[in-house]
Amino acid sequence: MYSETDKNQPIVQKYGGTSVGSVDRIRSIAARIARQKQAGWGKIAVVVSAMAGETNRFVELVGMVNPNAAAKHYDLAVSAGEQVSTALMAAALEREGVPAQAFLAYQIGLRAEGLHAKARIRSIDTEKLEACWAAGGVPVVAGFQGVSEQNEVMTLGRGGSDISAVALAVALKASFCEINTDVEGVFTADPRVVPEAKLVETLDYDSDLEMAALGRKVLHSRCVELGAKYGMPIVVRDSFDVEEARRTRIMSFTESQALEAPVVTGVSLDRNVCKFTLTGLKRGSSVLSTVFERVAEAGANVDIIIQNELAESDTMRLGFTVGSADGKLASEALEALRGEAAFDELQFTQRGDLAKVSVVGLGMKSYAGVASRAFAALADAGVEILMTSTSEIKISCVVPADRAEEAARAWHNAFFAN
Amino acid sequence: MYSETDKNQPIVQKYGGTSVGSVDRIRSIAARIARQKQAGWGKIAVVVSAMAGETNRFVELVGMVNPNAAAKHYDLAVSAGEQVSTALMAAALEREGVPAQAFLAYQIGLRAEGLHAKARIRSIDTEKLEACWAAGGVPVVAGFQGVSEQNEVMTLGRGGSDISAVALAVALKASFCEINTDVEGVFTADPRVVPEAKLVETLDYDSDLEMAALGRKVLHSRCVELGAKYGMPIVVRDSFDVEEARRTRIMSFTESQALEAPVVTGVSLDRNVCKFTLTGLKRGSSVLSTVFERVAEAGANVDIIIQNELAESDTMRLGFTVGSADGKLASEALEALRGEAAFDELQFTQRGDLAKVSVVGLGMKSYAGVASRAFAALADAGVEILMTSTSEIKISCVVPADRAEEAARAWHNAFFAN
Repeated sequence: MYSETDKNQPIVQKYGGTSVGSVDRIRSIAARIARQKQAGWGKIAVVVSAMAGETNRFVELVGMVNPNAAAKHYDLAVSAGEQVSTALMAAALEREGVPAQAFLAYQIGLRAEGLHAKARIRSIDTEKLEACWAAGGVPVVAGFQGVSEQNEVMTLGRGGSDISAVALAVALKASFCEINTDVEGVFTADPRVVPEAKLVETLDYDSDLEMAALGRKVLHSRCVELGAKYGMPIVVRDSFDVEEARRTRIMSFTESQALEAPVVTGVSLDRNVCKFTLTGLKRGSSVLSTVFERVAEAGANVDIIIQNELAESDTMRLGFTVGSADGKLASEALEALRGEAAFDELQFTQRGDLAKVSVVGLGMKSYAGVASRAFAALADAGVEILMTSTSEIKISCVVPADRAEEAARAWHNAFFAN
Repeated sequence: MYSETDKNQPIVQKYGGTSVGSVDRIRSIAARIARQKQAGWGKIAVVVSAMAGETNRFVELVGMVNPNAAAKHYDLAVSAGEQVSTALMAAALEREGVPAQAFLAYQIGLRAEGLHAKARIRSIDTEKLEACWAAGGVPVVAGFQGVSEQNEVMTLGRGGSDISAVALAVALKASFCEINTDVEGVFTADPRVVPEAKLVETLDYDSDLEMAALGRKVLHSRCVELGAKYGMPIVVRDSFDVEEARRTRIMSFTESQALEAPVVTGVSLDRNVCKFTLTGLKRGSSVLSTVFERVAEAGANVDIIIQNELAESDTMRLGFTVGSADGKLASEALEALRGEAAFDELQFTQRGDLAKVSVVGLGMKSYAGVASRAFAALADAGVEILMTSTSEIKISCVVPADRAEEAARAWHNAFFAN
């Protein structure tokens, strides 16, 4: 159990779809919470996702009834799974002798705003939740949903229960938000690719966000952003781990912690990268914005952008990547640009069989030589580098997809072996 | 379509679980409503049940998680199916070009009171529904659910969507409430037993209630009671009947209609009857109430009661029936009575292989000789009568279960042939 916090402080626990995927799982989670209550944790609030598969079933039904269903109808249908799992968890807790109260968004004024199907949480009334604690109970809150000013159900987007949990933890001034999922935490690399990968025990928000954006997603990035914004520590653990042994804590690093942080937190791998190289672009401020406006309008998400003006020329060179699935959309957008005056000399090449390996770490900020070590490792492994992009806490290299795993292992070995 | 009403008057249509049991069914119902809108029906409100099977699935899940789940948790879980079907119906209507808005109980102040899992509707705010009509739309309301003063979901009991629909029709001052189900209407007898059975075109509330109570249940009896209380006509039709040809209209009969009503409306059959005969009961006012108090406490529902004081004796004879499933509970309750002072001479016999045939009709009130005709028909058929009970509009006879179908056919022939 938790040794690190005061038992009188609120804590929020979120259980995802596989964690509540069966009656047995729900009952074993209820038993865990009952043990914690017995051990004196007085203010536990629980957030649950729909049972695994339920939300997809509702999404499919809506799609079959009307592929262009209004988002408000979609939201209403797909949020029904959380209603069921919330009620089931409350019933399971009561079976363990723990009084419990289920809450849907409208019942606790969990207000959302913005677009249906990707709403953002605006506020939560904590009064009823605190009353539930005061009566010795455990409130069980439906994840993934909020209500608009008009009391319509809005969903927070897929994976939105993570966001619900952190928002609730912030509203309740919890000491931390525990995300129970089907992995043990954040690893230094994907253990399927790099068998020596280790669990990261503590991690700063920025490094987690970088790793998530790079395809090593354990948590929804909006959930981590929210944690970072309010300084809410997020603990990731495996809900199947009855020993309660392993977990990753994602939190703000103080300056001294940041200095002492490992140089590199992890290595990640994104297998589906499509790279475009554009030449013949006329110099001028609007050219770049036009390119990415059109690519975005076509529905393609751009990842890396590298751009370089050649001093001796009046044309630019531009490179960018999109996910492999968006390659066709992006190339069609570029083809369409060719007809326009500013782009009459545009040429572009496209290569789709690529992957991106990245190395992430807060310590890189203050540690010189990470880039050279990274490049050397890939050179030693004989992996061709087609593109490089860096940030304060990240280096990414685009490499041929069939060499990507090798590249990831080479970097893991370079930074974690000792 | 409906010729009998003004197109500017509100109408409420309810679609049950099999009527919305698949994507195809939902789409064909949406198409029907779209045709009605096109034909000028401006104020249609729709109530839907959960897709067939969904509610049972949730009931089972709750039972597995906690067989003694608090009713509020049960209600929350089992009401999720209507949320999905409501959203799907709204999406399907929009695909047909009909603007639609889904409403859950909390969104239209559909307040319920009483017990969870068998709540009663107290009030409905019609403002949003009328605003939906004003904007040219069709409101789609989740059946089966209401919310308490504390905004907790309460369900109205199985079949409760019928009640939702009639309550909504009353609140909206609809000209009628149409219940779309999987039968064409109310028949003069069960067509599986009596092949000559005919559809009843109009029926008074009392006769329908009697028929329903006698096992010929098409509508939830609370729904018919509500219709009777507010004089809301209820139209039963088969949602699969695209010709819109056949239906039963359940309504108040005026005195002249009642006089002209057919003597007998229908014949019904309840196969599972267990009969008790008690002797050795001491006379005295509290004896009868004690017997039925104990039987009710044991959880057995008593149907027929017949009691007769014998002038020459100081003991009474009492007969009553319960459903076969309750036979054991009732006999245990009677056994337990024997130990008590007032019941030291109690003897009882029990017979479980019985059925009840009934003949129902408003016209019986003013038509002599129905009873003699009924007894004659059973005598001619050689069916033994073990118990008889009558009301103003009903005669019921308890007969051996293996002769019950013959008895029903004999009565149908006696009252409907020509």
